Amino acid sequence: MTTSAAIGPFLAFVRRWAEPVEAALHALLPAVAEPPASLHQAMHYALFPGGKRLRPMLVLLGCQAAGGDPQRALRAAAALECLHTYSLVHDDLPCMDDDDLRRGRPTCHKVHGEAMALLAGDALLTVAFEGAADAGAAAVVELARAAGSLGMVGGQVEDLAAEGDPTHHTLARVQWIHDHKTGALITASLLVGAHAAFVGTPGGAAPASILVPLRRYGDLLGRAFQIADDCLDLTGTAAELGKNPLADVALGKLTWPAMIGLEPSLQAARDLAAEARAMVPTVLAATAAARPSAGSMLDAAAGLLQDVASYAVERRS
Amino acid sequence: MTTSAAIGPFLAFVRRWAEPVEAALHALLPAVAEPPASLHQAMHYALFPGGKRLRPMLVLLGCQAAGGDPQRALRAAAALECLHTYSLVHDDLPCMDDDDLRRGRPTCHKVHGEAMALLAGDALLTVAFEGAADAGAAAVVELARAAGSLGMVGGQVEDLAAEGDPTHHTLARVQWIHDHKTGALITASLLVGAHAAFVGTPGGAAPASILVPLRRYGDLLGRAFQIADDCLDLTGTAAELGKNPLADVALGKLTWPAMIGLEPSLQAARDLAAEARAMVPTVLAATAAARPSAGSMLDAAAGLLQDVASYAVERRS
Repeated sequence: MTTSAAIGPFLAFVRRWAEPVEAALHALLPAVAEPPASLHQAMHYALFPGGKRLRPMLVLLGCQAAGGDPQRALRAAAALECLHTYSLVHDDLPCMDDDDLRRGRPTCHKVHGEAMALLAGDALLTVAFEGAADAGAAAVVELARAAGSLGMVGGQVEDLAAEGDPTHHTLARVQWIHDHKTGALITASLLVGAHAAFVGTPGGAAPASILVPLRRYGDLLGRAFQIADDCLDLTGTAAELGKNPLADVALGKLTWPAMIGLEPSLQAARDLAAEARAMVPTVLAATAAARPSAGSMLDAAAGLLQDVASYAVERRS
Repeated sequence: MTTSAAIGPFLAFVRRWAEPVEAALHALLPAVAEPPASLHQAMHYALFPGGKRLRPMLVLLGCQAAGGDPQRALRAAAALECLHTYSLVHDDLPCMDDDDLRRGRPTCHKVHGEAMALLAGDALLTVAFEGAADAGAAAVVELARAAGSLGMVGGQVEDLAAEGDPTHHTLARVQWIHDHKTGALITASLLVGAHAAFVGTPGGAAPASILVPLRRYGDLLGRAFQIADDCLDLTGTAAELGKNPLADVALGKLTWPAMIGLEPSLQAARDLAAEARAMVPTVLAATAAARPSAGSMLDAAAGLLQDVASYAVERRS
């Protein structure tokens, strides 16, 4: 028995692709020594060492679910991590959450200064679109909509507004903020990967028959992930989380457990994960119809899509 | 005689396309009332009313120079203005230039707050790539490289570094900063437009035979524009410039006239404009070879490319 036999298919997939994703990040970014070196140092500081690289893994998985070789989606996978990292760097700035620590290290602006952190975030967002273009123009549009004012940035605005406005805390508002601030990018990761699987085909982009069910799956997965995150803030240890638990409580953040309690929140996350798993056959039937040649690769994709939904709610960090 | 007969071909082109560019900007951006309205208000505040919309006009001109109907490039043209505007909003922030006024009005963060201005800039940068994707994946890559850490953002970093380091002021450094901070985006505007002209063709992107001379033309044009800008800061009136003259001098900015004097700088700008004009036949011969059907449209494009180079150094604002 190897260790990887003891872990689920998704964590085995993460191990398989961890090194290629790091290599793709290094290939997408200019080297540290490239002028202006101070800027590239700040960008690398924010990106390395990374966490689970969840979004890049979802790009690769989206590619496989659409019948493509994950190898084809590595540059787009790196792009999603750059985009996610920019959002963290800007969120940590003094005019935003004013955070000193991120993943147990001083935040980018604490080390490189506020102006450089702002510009490093801008450059990471920009290079993300260079990487996403590798999956075609449709992938760029998908990513921009998910990350922009009607997606992630919009969610960030509402999150800031909610902190100063506790009288309007409702579950619908929590859900809206989750869907925009984190959910949109999780769904976009899968869809960008699906588009990467169709680069070089006549249409150059994944067909709606695949995108519609995959989007639905991604939306459910994103919700399950975020509610589970909210719960981990209450139940996890500092060692497991790599940050102080109860951080959301300390900030008076709008979370699911704060609204309806821990146990009902965990149940909601489990229900959403089950709903996501139930979508998997529809996604893969669409791929099989669009690409009869995909064949046996889709069985592995089915197992992965099932497992990542379970992982979303069962993980300890 | 109409008024437009008294102005050059480029200013007539600007008049012809001013309204469609504004319409394209409104079409690319979410409406102000779209939630979160506070964010969309800040984005619209930064974009409207605009200035000359120089970069969108260069996108349309690049499209025409590559044998395409400028109409086809309107969404990409709007994208370039969003990208340019994001860079102004972020440059004005307290941790950067800390400016209170822009085009005679309070800067975005003065009206909407620092967090909102940061996020409005992020969202403008993001939506720029949604618009650029309309000109294809190659246009996205071109724009990302011009705007990123090896382009505009890199130039901004070096510009900030030079302010605090007057011992290393050399003409080579001024040129490097100009080329990156403003030149890269001027060139990219033309090239994105050229790519837009080839959307729907087999390759889906403009061929290198057009891109190489057009890039050279754009680099020369961008240099001429920026040196002329530096000189206008010394010679223009507040009414002409819409801002206080001598602003660069007051900030101790690294400029051409500060390095070599006003008259030699003006001569350098005129020489660059002449060099740019000399490139025009090469650009249009390449287009004629790639698209024999472009025909008479190219005569108008030749006149425009010639005239915008003259405009760059002869304008009073």
